Amino acid sequence: MKKFNMANMAQQAKIASRVAAQLTTGQKNTLLNAIAKAIESQSEQIIIANEKDIAAGKDKGLSEAMLDRLLLTNKRISDMSDAIREIVTLTDPVGGVNNLILRPNGIQVGKMRIPLGVIAMIYEARPNVTAEAAALCIKSGNAVILRGGSEAIHSNLALVDCLHRVLKEQGIDENIVAVIPDTNRDVIDQLLKQRETIDLVIPRGGEGLIRYVTEHSQIPVIQHFKGVCHLYIDKFADVKKAVAILVNGKTQKPSACNAFETLLIHQDIVEHFLPLAVTALKEFDVKVHACQQSLSHFSQAQLATEEDYHAEYLAQEIAVKVVDSYQMAIDHINEYTSDHTEVIVSQDTSRTQNFIRQINSSVVMVNASSRFSDGGQLGLGSEIGISTSKLHAYGPMGLSALTTEKFIVLGDGQVRS
Amino acid sequence: MKKFNMANMAQQAKIASRVAAQLTTGQKNTLLNAIAKAIESQSEQIIIANEKDIAAGKDKGLSEAMLDRLLLTNKRISDMSDAIREIVTLTDPVGGVNNLILRPNGIQVGKMRIPLGVIAMIYEARPNVTAEAAALCIKSGNAVILRGGSEAIHSNLALVDCLHRVLKEQGIDENIVAVIPDTNRDVIDQLLKQRETIDLVIPRGGEGLIRYVTEHSQIPVIQHFKGVCHLYIDKFADVKKAVAILVNGKTQKPSACNAFETLLIHQDIVEHFLPLAVTALKEFDVKVHACQQSLSHFSQAQLATEEDYHAEYLAQEIAVKVVDSYQMAIDHINEYTSDHTEVIVSQDTSRTQNFIRQINSSVVMVNASSRFSDGGQLGLGSEIGISTSKLHAYGPMGLSALTTEKFIVLGDGQVRS
Repeated sequence: MKKFNMANMAQQAKIASRVAAQLTTGQKNTLLNAIAKAIESQSEQIIIANEKDIAAGKDKGLSEAMLDRLLLTNKRISDMSDAIREIVTLTDPVGGVNNLILRPNGIQVGKMRIPLGVIAMIYEARPNVTAEAAALCIKSGNAVILRGGSEAIHSNLALVDCLHRVLKEQGIDENIVAVIPDTNRDVIDQLLKQRETIDLVIPRGGEGLIRYVTEHSQIPVIQHFKGVCHLYIDKFADVKKAVAILVNGKTQKPSACNAFETLLIHQDIVEHFLPLAVTALKEFDVKVHACQQSLSHFSQAQLATEEDYHAEYLAQEIAVKVVDSYQMAIDHINEYTSDHTEVIVSQDTSRTQNFIRQINSSVVMVNASSRFSDGGQLGLGSEIGISTSKLHAYGPMGLSALTTEKFIVLGDGQVRS
Repeated sequence: MKKFNMANMAQQAKIASRVAAQLTTGQKNTLLNAIAKAIESQSEQIIIANEKDIAAGKDKGLSEAMLDRLLLTNKRISDMSDAIREIVTLTDPVGGVNNLILRPNGIQVGKMRIPLGVIAMIYEARPNVTAEAAALCIKSGNAVILRGGSEAIHSNLALVDCLHRVLKEQGIDENIVAVIPDTNRDVIDQLLKQRETIDLVIPRGGEGLIRYVTEHSQIPVIQHFKGVCHLYIDKFADVKKAVAILVNGKTQKPSACNAFETLLIHQDIVEHFLPLAVTALKEFDVKVHACQQSLSHFSQAQLATEEDYHAEYLAQEIAVKVVDSYQMAIDHINEYTSDHTEVIVSQDTSRTQNFIRQINSSVVMVNASSRFSDGGQLGLGSEIGISTSKLHAYGPMGLSALTTEKFIVLGDGQVRS
């Protein structure tokens, strides 16, 4: 086998990105529909490839959860195709100009949305991410280089083979989508140096991977470390809403990054709210780490430690703290925030307005469940990821986060005096 | 002297950034006006400090140009204050919400503009940048860490002392603005590792510095490498406009990054346009590097080499190339672009529309001089820099490039089903 050359792949992706940027919305949608169809009609080959990955994964002793994420079935393949068809329905952000201003000398100045160019995705062994990431990058006019977990390599190569066939049929540069065939870890180091050709790296996966990419990349990185989401029950809260939001945000999908991890309660509402919360949390067997002041309200809680306020439990588990004042809640959030999502429950407009201004996490909510902190729920359509760093994109990222804006100037011979 | 601790300074800036983010526009403007006044009233001390820098610079053998950029006079100090007063007049981007959409479940979703947090600027020995960068960061609600060229250290410390006095008087955390007192180069390496506290690094200066920062930073970097701006004279150009734009873009300020470096001419208009261009360029003593096909039109041109098409002359010097077709012009620009500014001169709407869609440099112009590629000229107000990398900001950067957007969700007790 010829040795894989990362720089070459990136260079070809860069050339292909110019083709991708020029496709019309119609061409992109036709392409995506054809890809969705091809994945279904080639499901047999894809499943055969996936069986190799599964067999190797079992030999390697992967956990049940990992094997499940790796597994493709006919149902899952058709879900994958449906996800691509969903992307067809999204508005194409490319080419839009928001407004043209007229300068005193008569030139018109505007900003036009354009693709970023070449996007590299580094993620876990989840073949469905391969298909969806490719589709989102195509729809936003970008070329994409995919580096999924090595355990999914056969599945990913089968999927990209399917995409390449469709691109070939439609006479479009195949290098718009590439899967890195080399599963060696050092390929990632090579990838992170291609700053002349790759415009953005999106790592998805464990904190270790994301830190590694951040520390070694010469290319801009969009990061999502963790979600330590706070729920603050203000003294002016409607306790019924408060309990409903607590239960939904904590228990509906505790493994999600937008689940609550810490509950802050204003001391003036403790007696009124906490008994209801205790009952509700008990119903869902939520393990509680409570502060000294609230501990006695729970029958089985542990005393919360400093680590509990930093913890992303991702389980039916929560830290609880009573705060003396609104300001103490703000200070606690500012100290422990992961810049993901924070919620205030209060009927008092001053408190809610201040909360929105004072908390600068990527999603700040009033009287709503943190579970809405998701691209689909916020109206962005399919989500390519969520950023908890402030540059370029902050919060759930939809298609437009895969684009940027250039200036356009329309003149009639003007020169600068 | 106590050893300087970079991590400490960054940590204090992070804490101060929360204060900066909460200042109202009125407070920020009052502060900036007071700073402008203080710089003028303390001009004597500032000039004494500057004299130390100038003396040391002369001993060190700095060039006349560098000494001139370093020099502060009463006139220059009052210009600095005027630049700050100009920033007072700019619209505050912080806190604005563009539109709130209503989701089917009744939650309202919008995006609110917020400061980035802590910005680090690394730049040359130009004390006026110290004052202006600090003012732009304050106006956009950020804290800022300044690292100017070591040759300007006394001037910069005198300026920041002046700023700190004003902040103290107004009871605002002084750590909103910091000048790194340690002039050792390895402080930059330490700075580039503070990704937990610093949100953005903006290097300004030579290509070497920018590459160094890009390669070593764990913090997002906004880059501006160089400006190889292209002027394409289409076959359908109005030659009178074409000549005026060429002369203005090349000769008005050849040392600027938005000056033209390469002239591309469609072969069908060569006979009509080139004689006029030759005369005009001769008048400004512009040195010409011409392609084989155009060489004979010039009396003194040299044959252009491959390097000439990559060159950023920053002088009265230009590369000239005749292209067979519109597409060849596009291909040339795509190959040699620095993603700064490209201009087409044409009266044909199909050509100009295609040019705007097909060229993805940060500023793309039709029938206008590249010298408009500047924050002030484009209507952004004072410019903090210009980005030729696509993430976060692309092209001239005004105040809003120092901000980002968070999601806000306004509910009335909604939970996710």
